[in-house]
Amino acid sequence: MNPKYLAEFLGSAGLLLVVVGSGIMAEDLAQGNQAIALLGNSLATGAGLFALIQTFGPVSGAHFNPAVSLVETLERRLSWRELRSYLAMQVLGALVGVLLAHFIFAKKLFQLSTHARQSGPLLVSELVVSFGLLMVIGLVSRRNPAATSASVALYITAGYWCTSSTSFANPAVTLARSLTDTFAGILWTGVPGFVVAQLIGAYLAHRVLRLLTS
Amino acid sequence: MNPKYLAEFLGSAGLLLVVVGSGIMAEDLAQGNQAIALLGNSLATGAGLFALIQTFGPVSGAHFNPAVSLVETLERRLSWRELRSYLAMQVLGALVGVLLAHFIFAKKLFQLSTHARQSGPLLVSELVVSFGLLMVIGLVSRRNPAATSASVALYITAGYWCTSSTSFANPAVTLARSLTDTFAGILWTGVPGFVVAQLIGAYLAHRVLRLLTS
Amino acid sequence: MNPKYLAEFLGSAGLLLVVVGSGIMAEDLAQGNQAIALLGNSLATGAGLFALIQTFGPVSGAHFNPAVSLVETLERRLSWRELRSYLAMQVLGALVGVLLAHFIFAKKLFQLSTHARQSGPLLVSELVVSFGLLMVIGLVSRRNPAATSASVALYITAGYWCTSSTSFANPAVTLARSLTDTFAGILWTGVPGFVVAQLIGAYLAHRVLRLLTS
Amino acid sequence: MNPKYLAEFLGSAGLLLVVVGSGIMAEDLAQGNQAIALLGNSLATGAGLFALIQTFGPVSGAHFNPAVSLVETLERRLSWRELRSYLAMQVLGALVGVLLAHFIFAKKLFQLSTHARQSGPLLVSELVVSFGLLMVIGLVSRRNPAATSASVALYITAGYWCTSSTSFANPAVTLARSLTDTFAGILWTGVPGFVVAQLIGAYLAHRVLRLLTS
Repeated sequence: MNPKYLAEFLGSAGLLLVVVGSGIMAEDLAQGNQAIALLGNSLATGAGLFALIQTFGPVSGAHFNPAVSLVETLERRLSWRELRSYLAMQVLGALVGVLLAHFIFAKKLFQLSTHARQSGPLLVSELVVSFGLLMVIGLVSRRNPAATSASVALYITAGYWCTSSTSFANPAVTLARSLTDTFAGILWTGVPGFVVAQLIGAYLAHRVLRLLTS
Repeated sequence: MNPKYLAEFLGSAGLLLVVVGSGIMAEDLAQGNQAIALLGNSLATGAGLFALIQTFGPVSGAHFNPAVSLVETLERRLSWRELRSYLAMQVLGALVGVLLAHFIFAKKLFQLSTHARQSGPLLVSELVVSFGLLMVIGLVSRRNPAATSASVALYITAGYWCTSSTSFANPAVTLARSLTDTFAGILWTGVPGFVVAQLIGAYLAHRVLRLLTS
Repeated sequence: MNPKYLAEFLGSAGLLLVVVGSGIMAEDLAQGNQAIALLGNSLATGAGLFALIQTFGPVSGAHFNPAVSLVETLERRLSWRELRSYLAMQVLGALVGVLLAHFIFAKKLFQLSTHARQSGPLLVSELVVSFGLLMVIGLVSRRNPAATSASVALYITAGYWCTSSTSFANPAVTLARSLTDTFAGILWTGVPGFVVAQLIGAYLAHRVLRLLTS
Repeated sequence: MNPKYLAEFLGSAGLLLVVVGSGIMAEDLAQGNQAIALLGNSLATGAGLFALIQTFGPVSGAHFNPAVSLVETLERRLSWRELRSYLAMQVLGALVGVLLAHFIFAKKLFQLSTHARQSGPLLVSELVVSFGLLMVIGLVSRRNPAATSASVALYITAGYWCTSSTSFANPAVTLARSLTDTFAGILWTGVPGFVVAQLIGAYLAHRVLRLLTS
């Protein structure tokens, strides 16, 4: 297999294992205090994301995110052919990551989230945070690539706290999180709205980046 | 638009979204334990600030802070003409950031804080922390510019905990935070005192920096 | 003594002092909230691991982990003769670290853990997390060695939260943790399973790394 | 004034402001949960220490610690004459930092701690953690100086959690902390024992470093 595609698969699986697994652990231990649970969940996600981007960045670019791959394709740094494989590997990896989290925590493998997340403010939240994520990636990866992993990881840690949607900002992650009825879940009816909002935010960033880098 | 001004606008909006949004989330979830809320608020602010400085630093210098822009102007790294635009963009961005935080958390858009912060010790706290912030920026950006984002971000995270005013250290942030009646708010009557203390602290740093870099 | 062996001894002792000591402190103070205890334990472990790898990395490679030394030997970066000494120093250091933690916290020096950790999901958890650890080390140390300490430290911090076994991922650490009946302990009957799972995970990473770096 | 001495004064004052101030804030807000208080105190101290070392490192070496300055003198990187001024500035700065923390938190300026810390295990704890601190500084500052600030900051954050004495590891800090009856305080009768243990640990590190760098 092309190393790039394997890296996107492994990284996306790792990312969902971190997001869902740390959500399970945090909620199990936090005795109902959701702020303590979110501390564990957000710090673990940021820490894991840093390690995953450092690890797979030199192989595949460490997208783990269809919105990122799409913008990279629009900016001609990824071919449309590669894009197809990237998206497939990201979605497949994300699903495997959720199953793995369920298995090692001895939960039912296949679940559907019952956590409704679909109000207007949440959609704006996803649009804004996806716009910001692509701005961070677009500017930092061009000007100071060695700082990309720390910037993206800390951006997401901050996003968990400062947005009402807790910053999914990733269509593959959103889809996979509909399949877990744990802390990180999202009821499937909310998935399409989140994905559309994420893609709009990413596209806006693609346009605004031209103003900043011209 | 000049990319520098757009960067200052976007960065200041992002900064206030992080500060106010994470304050809302933290207070909503922390069940009344303010130390847990401050953990979420301070870690999110530091993380977000790192990402914002990395992102916009190469474009505008990533001030997001009138006190910083003023000192840069005194040190002739920014023209008086640029200063005017920087200040306008910082204030405008900060206000937009507060409104955005209110919107995505489904709060009333326009609010006035009722959180009084104006005693003498708080003013000294703001003076001291602004002095320190400008010392950090002044020395690190000259000697080791790649470390500026981490140094400023961690300085502010520490400042949230070790000062009685929780380290506003930024006139635009102070003004904008008077317009939110949430965790991060400040009653408007306290704004002038905070701003004056911040500017005095910044000016003192400007003078002491000469002793250290001569 | 060969500086490499002394470094492995000191680093392994330091690692266990951090893991066991911070577990004792966290549990003593957390008033029964295990999520708060895990925050202290996981942040301290990540922070300490970063400092230890930075300190001893240039001397010995900062393995502190028989699974890492074994893979390094398979990849011919360590001789079989060195491996023997590395393993001895890692185990010896780990034991000394546990005793030291007990001594400074005024606990009984010799203890046996009563914390059973040996179900199937926990073994898969150890296999997966050890696979991931060796992937991180294998790719980051080749492509961006300066980032190894941060990547490994944050990987382990994330692992504490996102795996049901809390990411031992290290046979010497596992053995030593059977000798403490505190937060970080593991009942000795669980040690062989954990070690076998860790070695299988590490070996799998060794094989997959070839696909990614060929 | 010699910029080096001014830097040691300002950095030591800043360090004590962070240690004592974040202790006051953490204890005030944590509703009696000492683990939550220690999270705030240890994260703030690590964050502040990073910023202070980055800021003043290129000026004075950013010791802020008589044990560090003594070892630097033994290794002939500081003259005995400079040592005298470094020690004076560190002690003076530390005292000013404590007074400043008391003032901005509206506490009585002059206090004596009533927190007894002087058992045998605590002394061993200080010896061990001071040994470790000097090992970290000695090896990282020689092999990878740009990583010194992060290594020392994270070492101290870990030390707060994994040692029974919470890692003072600094005679000037120890002395100054006897003058605050808040979270970070130490009853004055414990100061001499702590300082002796710190100096022994530092001296041992000085000797062991020769084995590792020969």
